Amino acid sequence: MPAAVVLLSGGLDSYTAAAVAKRDGFDLYALTVRYGQRHAQELAAARRVAAALAVTRHLEIEVDLSRMGGSALTADIAVPKDGLIRPDTIPVTYVPARNTVFLSLALAWAEVVEAADLVIGVNALDYSGYPDCRPEFIRAFEALARLATKAGTEGRAFTVHAPLIALSKAEIVRLGVSLGLDYGITHSCYDPAASGRPCCHCDSCLLRAAGFSEAGVVDPLVLQF
Amino acid sequence: MPAAVVLLSGGLDSYTAAAVAKRDGFDLYALTVRYGQRHAQELAAARRVAAALAVTRHLEIEVDLSRMGGSALTADIAVPKDGLIRPDTIPVTYVPARNTVFLSLALAWAEVVEAADLVIGVNALDYSGYPDCRPEFIRAFEALARLATKAGTEGRAFTVHAPLIALSKAEIVRLGVSLGLDYGITHSCYDPAASGRPCCHCDSCLLRAAGFSEAGVVDPLVLQF
Repeated sequence: MPAAVVLLSGGLDSYTAAAVAKRDGFDLYALTVRYGQRHAQELAAARRVAAALAVTRHLEIEVDLSRMGGSALTADIAVPKDGLIRPDTIPVTYVPARNTVFLSLALAWAEVVEAADLVIGVNALDYSGYPDCRPEFIRAFEALARLATKAGTEGRAFTVHAPLIALSKAEIVRLGVSLGLDYGITHSCYDPAASGRPCCHCDSCLLRAAGFSEAGVVDPLVLQF
Repeated sequence: MPAAVVLLSGGLDSYTAAAVAKRDGFDLYALTVRYGQRHAQELAAARRVAAALAVTRHLEIEVDLSRMGGSALTADIAVPKDGLIRPDTIPVTYVPARNTVFLSLALAWAEVVEAADLVIGVNALDYSGYPDCRPEFIRAFEALARLATKAGTEGRAFTVHAPLIALSKAEIVRLGVSLGLDYGITHSCYDPAASGRPCCHCDSCLLRAAGFSEAGVVDPLVLQF
């Protein structure tokens, strides 16, 4: 089976994207980037997801983007609560150049394990707000990857798979349910309690709740609390 | 003065590139990436260079690429000694996707400090061997940066300055000397002794020695040992 490096955050999107890659016959090399996240729960969820997918390897790499600041997810900026999702603005939870950093690290590892495929769980809701979730960003990264690497100069064409990029949250939930995924092991909240209980008020919680609701599926995570 | 994020390794190339940016009127934000280097001497040299250039900020970020392996600079692969420099092959000291990772981190910090300029000390000798030192790689990264960031979508055009890209090592030495740089504070060796003494046999030492020799300049680093 060909190897693919999948970015795994512990959220439901990356779990679903990785599961699609597994369904499509890839041998999964899961990469979790510890980037100064506020919450250890994300990392614990990433480990649960890696185990559930029986990945070949799970590598955690630390990159402390919080040293740079500039985002509500890494710096001392309040996470917005109960806000309207406004597709025309980039929220303060945007982390500067995050997906560029993540894909660069995935590319480095892909070159070492001789994979030509990278997988990232960006989706339509994200890319309405985050610039580094857009299809044109993904294509530009593929072009860069070919020029940036020894493997690329030797003819390997890297493909960045973003299987959720055109899907709504409800469509992602339906896809994951059809693949038999247990979303109870994932973590989405930007601002959870110490117990891991989601705040249910940040953008991520609200989008997740709306997605499950629209899909007509009960979120197994909510049942745990 | 406009801010520029400069990648600073502690070697003579990045010192010279940063000095050119300073001469050209940039306020320097120096970024040193600790990527699992074998030698603490590189980091000590980066701190000396940052101090010599009186940078506005010096940020060290740890990214442990040695967890991935795949290079003589990060894994347990012998550093080649006394080899002929062969411009048609990529040496085992190539670190997969290193400059992509480095520029991604520089881009992240640039976005936070509102800089539009990145500086990297790649040069002609490097890009004869390393794919991520070529002008086409630099241009592809600029294209990516525009798409990858909030600043880019708001119209900021990022420029990646590679002022040494067309220079030989001798030309770099002459340029640095003309700028008054003290190369005695830098570190280039891939495999130094515990004392910091350069091995004088790895590609990096050989290229450095040939560059100083051709420039007709005595390397002040050699005089220290």
